[in-house]
Amino acid sequence: MAASQSTTPTADPADAAAPLFAPEVYRDRMRRAAELTAEAGLDALVVSPGPDLRYLVGSRADTFERLTALVVPAAGTPRLVIARLEVPSLSASAVGELDIEVADWVDGDDPYSLALSGIGAGAAIAVSDSMPALHVIPFAHKTGATPQLATAVLRELRMVKDGAEIEALRRAGSAIDRVHARMGEWLVPGRTEREVADDIRAAILAEGHSEAAFIIVGSGPNGADPHHEFSDRVIERSDIVVIDIGGPVEPGYNSDSTRTYCFEQPPTEIADAYAVLHDAQRAAVAAVRPGVTAESVDAAARDLLRAHGLADKFIHRTGHGIGLSVHEEPYIVEGNDIVLRPGMAFSVEPGVYFSGRWGARIEDIVVVTEDGCESLNNRPHELVQL
Amino acid sequence: MAASQSTTPTADPADAAAPLFAPEVYRDRMRRAAELTAEAGLDALVVSPGPDLRYLVGSRADTFERLTALVVPAAGTPRLVIARLEVPSLSASAVGELDIEVADWVDGDDPYSLALSGIGAGAAIAVSDSMPALHVIPFAHKTGATPQLATAVLRELRMVKDGAEIEALRRAGSAIDRVHARMGEWLVPGRTEREVADDIRAAILAEGHSEAAFIIVGSGPNGADPHHEFSDRVIERSDIVVIDIGGPVEPGYNSDSTRTYCFEQPPTEIADAYAVLHDAQRAAVAAVRPGVTAESVDAAARDLLRAHGLADKFIHRTGHGIGLSVHEEPYIVEGNDIVLRPGMAFSVEPGVYFSGRWGARIEDIVVVTEDGCESLNNRPHELVQL
Repeated sequence: MAASQSTTPTADPADAAAPLFAPEVYRDRMRRAAELTAEAGLDALVVSPGPDLRYLVGSRADTFERLTALVVPAAGTPRLVIARLEVPSLSASAVGELDIEVADWVDGDDPYSLALSGIGAGAAIAVSDSMPALHVIPFAHKTGATPQLATAVLRELRMVKDGAEIEALRRAGSAIDRVHARMGEWLVPGRTEREVADDIRAAILAEGHSEAAFIIVGSGPNGADPHHEFSDRVIERSDIVVIDIGGPVEPGYNSDSTRTYCFEQPPTEIADAYAVLHDAQRAAVAAVRPGVTAESVDAAARDLLRAHGLADKFIHRTGHGIGLSVHEEPYIVEGNDIVLRPGMAFSVEPGVYFSGRWGARIEDIVVVTEDGCESLNNRPHELVQL
Repeated sequence: MAASQSTTPTADPADAAAPLFAPEVYRDRMRRAAELTAEAGLDALVVSPGPDLRYLVGSRADTFERLTALVVPAAGTPRLVIARLEVPSLSASAVGELDIEVADWVDGDDPYSLALSGIGAGAAIAVSDSMPALHVIPFAHKTGATPQLATAVLRELRMVKDGAEIEALRRAGSAIDRVHARMGEWLVPGRTEREVADDIRAAILAEGHSEAAFIIVGSGPNGADPHHEFSDRVIERSDIVVIDIGGPVEPGYNSDSTRTYCFEQPPTEIADAYAVLHDAQRAAVAAVRPGVTAESVDAAARDLLRAHGLADKFIHRTGHGIGLSVHEEPYIVEGNDIVLRPGMAFSVEPGVYFSGRWGARIEDIVVVTEDGCESLNNRPHELVQL
């Protein structure tokens, strides 16, 4: 649901964004999706609710068991298959402005045949990666083959952000930076992680996000669990606290930034490990430029930590792409040899985790530029002493 | 996220429920899942995050691109494949109490091979209906065949609620009834749908739900769109208002109930149409008993509306199953010839929709009993004049 806060956001009203891009943006994306579909030797993409549908036609449809599917043929008019009772929701999308045939169906009809009737039963189709098995499997039966993943086609579009998308990501990055800048208002020893998270949630909304997508307050030993969210643990003065927060800003582009906080000078062991982590995160960001592989950026952080004996404390990938999804391509992980290009946006977020004791993580979102990258998060990277 | 309301719920504290059932409940479900898998001629089920995983082992894992999968073989020890950094989250599930091998993996590993290594590459597997294509398709490639949907196996378990599940659904039904009982506190002409929705949301939490899963405030013409959520429309004294609300109550069983409200005596045309709808909803509930088909319950409502010339105003199925999901099997829809059995729980929610003018819906959740059904929602069914 959209935020119902009546608090005036502290964000500049000139930053206020519309929930959709202009129709020509979607028209262009649809045209390019059809081109890439043909180039891939496919007959059509079949896109169900999720970020790919939002990217192509601005639809935030959210059906599960009732099939909503945008069929993008290699040639011909796209068709949107949708339950009749969901048709009114299309007014919140760009579908009405685009050359798309809307084919509605009622409970009891066969929506899979309706989706495929324009392209033939033996069609070679690719489906969006979020399509649930509930729909993937009937499509496989109808076409007589396992569909391909449309990711390989759609990521060509979604990974490389255009100027309007980068501007949207900048707005989101600035908004979450404003929240981190205010952390001292709420992150105080003696309070619980949950109480701090509640304040952070309100601030995420007040600073212009449409929702708080995730809030991690990992204090003391909870910081050693990268996906600990928040608990009733009382924060202590000696704690190291990982704060990883973010959410969407209209028209749906996400922020995601992590900083690590403390309340007093930490012991040497912690300060030294943090300093290595700081260098590793800086080294990974410095490694980002067009022409290098995603895995080379992961290696830049991991190798530095390894050189200091901390490789076994860094238990996850260096980063993930970001855009309409919080996690999307390209993943900055060993094994991903995709070559970085200008416009790609992803997190650079190494961490060190000392199980049962403490953890730290530093995360910025960066956008690849012609000769390096632009960081969308610009709070200080040092361990923040409140 | 769990509710952060500090308001004391008005629900009886004795109703407060734990987030998990006892381990033997899950042990029994896992054993029966394996039996049904063998009976279906399958080698294994592969269950990804979602209500099926929660049902079987109490896990609320929520990973997307990183595979979490519970492999339930027809014979042998089940295996839970999970990213190492997600392992701490298992402490919130029953996994540690069950005979399950936990196989963790790190970014860069191949989790699909890890999932299948115990059961063989050519295995006949069935996947949970919520598994995204991102994982379904690699499993299809590894096994050399399109997986089946596990629904046919799992629904045998999930559709027939045991006593503890029915009790959880009763608690949820009573909680949402308490919210409907208080509707006059918030639903007042001159306020916007959004303002009313905000108050309803707070009440849903205060009355014991862990979240407000959905809130529909459809006033005047918005009531004619069954999936309209809420807007900034100002409610008028002459409006008919559809309120469709619900959410989970620990340990995760959902409420869902709709009532239709007004503020003054409606015109005869509206009162007459509503009276037919009321009879149709009562007729459908009266039709529920073991041995009849799901579609016969839909027909009971639809036939009565048809007899009064209102069939074309009833533009959706009569109902949906409910449990850990808001929408699950059995669907009460034409074409579904599944035979009803004691313990099945579903909504009975016909409606009439006069596009651009007004709409009405009446919804109860019922549980099939030995000789009929028990209604879990018991507010008056008449058009409620506030």
